[in-house]
Amino acid sequence: MNKEQIFTIFGGTGDLTFRKLLPALYNIEAADDKELSARIVVVGRRDYTSESYREAARGWVEKFARLRFQKETYEKFAGRIVYYRMDFTDENAYEGLDSFYKKMQAGSHIFYFAVAPRFFSAIVKGLKRVEGAGEGKVVIEKPFGESLPAAAKLNESMEAFFKADHIYRIDHYLGKEMVRNIQIIRFANPIFSHVWDAEHIECIQISAMEEVGVETRGGYYDHSGALKDMVQNHLFQILTIVAMEQPESMAVEDMHREQIKVLKALRIPEDISEHMVLGQYEGYREEPAVNENSTTETYAALRLLVDNDRWRGMPFYVRTGKKLGTREMQVAIVFKSPAEGVEPDILNIKIQPTEGVYLQFNIKKPGETEELSQAKMDFCQNCSLVNRMNTPEAYERLLGACMRGERSWFSQWDQVEISWSYVDEVRKQYRQKGLPAYGYRQGSSGPEEAERLLKSFGHRWFE
Amino acid sequence: MNKEQIFTIFGGTGDLTFRKLLPALYNIEAADDKELSARIVVVGRRDYTSESYREAARGWVEKFARLRFQKETYEKFAGRIVYYRMDFTDENAYEGLDSFYKKMQAGSHIFYFAVAPRFFSAIVKGLKRVEGAGEGKVVIEKPFGESLPAAAKLNESMEAFFKADHIYRIDHYLGKEMVRNIQIIRFANPIFSHVWDAEHIECIQISAMEEVGVETRGGYYDHSGALKDMVQNHLFQILTIVAMEQPESMAVEDMHREQIKVLKALRIPEDISEHMVLGQYEGYREEPAVNENSTTETYAALRLLVDNDRWRGMPFYVRTGKKLGTREMQVAIVFKSPAEGVEPDILNIKIQPTEGVYLQFNIKKPGETEELSQAKMDFCQNCSLVNRMNTPEAYERLLGACMRGERSWFSQWDQVEISWSYVDEVRKQYRQKGLPAYGYRQGSSGPEEAERLLKSFGHRWFE
Repeated sequence: MNKEQIFTIFGGTGDLTFRKLLPALYNIEAADDKELSARIVVVGRRDYTSESYREAARGWVEKFARLRFQKETYEKFAGRIVYYRMDFTDENAYEGLDSFYKKMQAGSHIFYFAVAPRFFSAIVKGLKRVEGAGEGKVVIEKPFGESLPAAAKLNESMEAFFKADHIYRIDHYLGKEMVRNIQIIRFANPIFSHVWDAEHIECIQISAMEEVGVETRGGYYDHSGALKDMVQNHLFQILTIVAMEQPESMAVEDMHREQIKVLKALRIPEDISEHMVLGQYEGYREEPAVNENSTTETYAALRLLVDNDRWRGMPFYVRTGKKLGTREMQVAIVFKSPAEGVEPDILNIKIQPTEGVYLQFNIKKPGETEELSQAKMDFCQNCSLVNRMNTPEAYERLLGACMRGERSWFSQWDQVEISWSYVDEVRKQYRQKGLPAYGYRQGSSGPEEAERLLKSFGHRWFE
Repeated sequence: MNKEQIFTIFGGTGDLTFRKLLPALYNIEAADDKELSARIVVVGRRDYTSESYREAARGWVEKFARLRFQKETYEKFAGRIVYYRMDFTDENAYEGLDSFYKKMQAGSHIFYFAVAPRFFSAIVKGLKRVEGAGEGKVVIEKPFGESLPAAAKLNESMEAFFKADHIYRIDHYLGKEMVRNIQIIRFANPIFSHVWDAEHIECIQISAMEEVGVETRGGYYDHSGALKDMVQNHLFQILTIVAMEQPESMAVEDMHREQIKVLKALRIPEDISEHMVLGQYEGYREEPAVNENSTTETYAALRLLVDNDRWRGMPFYVRTGKKLGTREMQVAIVFKSPAEGVEPDILNIKIQPTEGVYLQFNIKKPGETEELSQAKMDFCQNCSLVNRMNTPEAYERLLGACMRGERSWFSQWDQVEISWSYVDEVRKQYRQKGLPAYGYRQGSSGPEEAERLLKSFGHRWFE
């Protein structure tokens, strides 16, 4: 019998595990790919047996798995799961885990840290007592620290135990179908690839708008805020994919090399007040576990400049916020207007909830006139059931990639490092200038100041 | 009382008048534009009174006018119509017409020759007896001759009487909404304007496919054929609009200057067999009034090369035919494939029956794959009732333009001349090589040889 890959989840009774990881692993099971076969060890403090855990997990899988729930598949899947009860902060408990793995004839390891980052070092410490654990892969989630120094420290402790290229930093936006599509749309189409630069594009807008507020995560969020929670990771990742030069291949080294070049070309603005607007929705301070005098931003809009030959002088506008009027994530490429008063061509790559492409260009108004109107074309990628069935959910895709050892679509440390240093710096400057988080109404499109940020450069947000 | 503009139709009881001209003039009436106000003199040999003619015209207007028939509008319109019975080949009869105009206190004249070209010179001769006729405008329809010498002779006789810039040669395709739109799509959109050349485009295909056969026009058609009936005029016109440099303005001189440059850059091929395929549908020789041994082509496909900096080396494929499986006219811009095996981006400008734009470009196939599929986007300009209501029909637009003296969208003599010399030359070469009109099945997409014409250059017709 071959030794099997073991997929261990620390934090196996938490929300992330039930809502995302188990449904994703179930989908992987349903695909029946031998390469992705693994036994799943769920580590938690709660009083489950393997049997009762499988039973508890069933409802979540039924509800959240992309693929239709099938009893047979679930039973096969559940048969892979064992529940291992332990307190992962108790260093001594790992000796038991080690024996348990030995009994299982564990082969290679994947450890998923589905816990708050403050527990990472405790788990790493414990895993030193587990034979072969240091050879394993580890998957961690944002936040990778809460500032550059904290992130660096966290990373150091991880790299002291795991090999650098065995650390998989999940950014689940990188698992999304239309994020994967950006480079295809850019590089496989002459109509776009030849005009993908500052000479032909007026501005690029990356928006991640949320309708929800902080919900039950007020305690975490109030120490984080939109810049750290969304901009530093997700939006910077997407920006680098939109802006990078064509990588020689999609291999991790080639792709990351190009992404890093973009991050390094990000210019720290001289006057932050013209480059960043933070906001806080009305009522945020009354949210559970939020400080009643909180100045944490629930909205951030930035004007970013990438100082290289392709992008010099052209702004990337990036915005994200909670409690807004719409839920949507998109990348809008606003081309230069061919003449004064003429609407720009717009390519909008829709990431969620609709996945697709919107394209707007000028045509003649019907009739005896040379006036222009706009042809508005919409392509929906996830509107057909077949496409939805064929499209793995982000976690499913990323867990599969991790099992196969494909690292292109994970964050690597130097990306995280540069993003943090940028975000730390603009945060510092913003505070030094005494600029506030401007209030905005729930259900609005954010603070008015974010409109002004663009207006002063002759732009407006694409809705 | 101001002297009124008189719009005289020779051939006032023919099909063109009833189906196209009167409905178009009715639509113009409905728009109630003072600038377009004219009295209409219908000249015919048949035994109508003005009253009975108005009554006869009513049914045609009801059936063919774009705008909803309204009794009140029709009565106003019919009030403008007088029927004048005469034999327009009888030179002496024009003296009566002259007196008639004088009684009407005719102002400026527009003469519409809705008759076969063989009658043009007789009408011109007669009009010499009509005071002020030589100062008027004249509108003529294709065929402008049946070869370069014949066309030149015809033109000479017209220009001997009318001023050159008072001769309006109608090409009704130039009145079509989406033909007018080509230059807007080209020049008002950076995503297209920057890749509108041989460097970025693989080939351009202009297709005019008809489902109908020669119907009742076998006598005319058998002496003409697809090259003279469609290619020399309509398709060459469209080609020049697709290929021309951006005119300084839409004024007639600027636009024609650029169109002429394209026609002059058309290269006569060295080996015609690689550049032209003619076809004849099975059963054509049994059509009424068609010679039983006819070699006339009912289908023509050409590979045209425009020898200038923008287009050098890139083929324009042009095809037209009768009794084909579809009825559609379109201009397909097939961009260069970005890599081997990758589908090209395609912009298809649909001229009729659907008016709109189709765009196809590469995206990623959904799912865990880097394979490509195509986003196919369709914009229909005439699918909404409002747009249909707002879009003048080709004749309506062109008659209005003639009344206003706008000549940009009419053929001018040097265009006709160069087109004829090209078509005469390729016809001659084709015959000299002994190449036939290849047979093709009714309802097919034309002769197989037309597929081979493209295949040998690695292309295929866009359907």
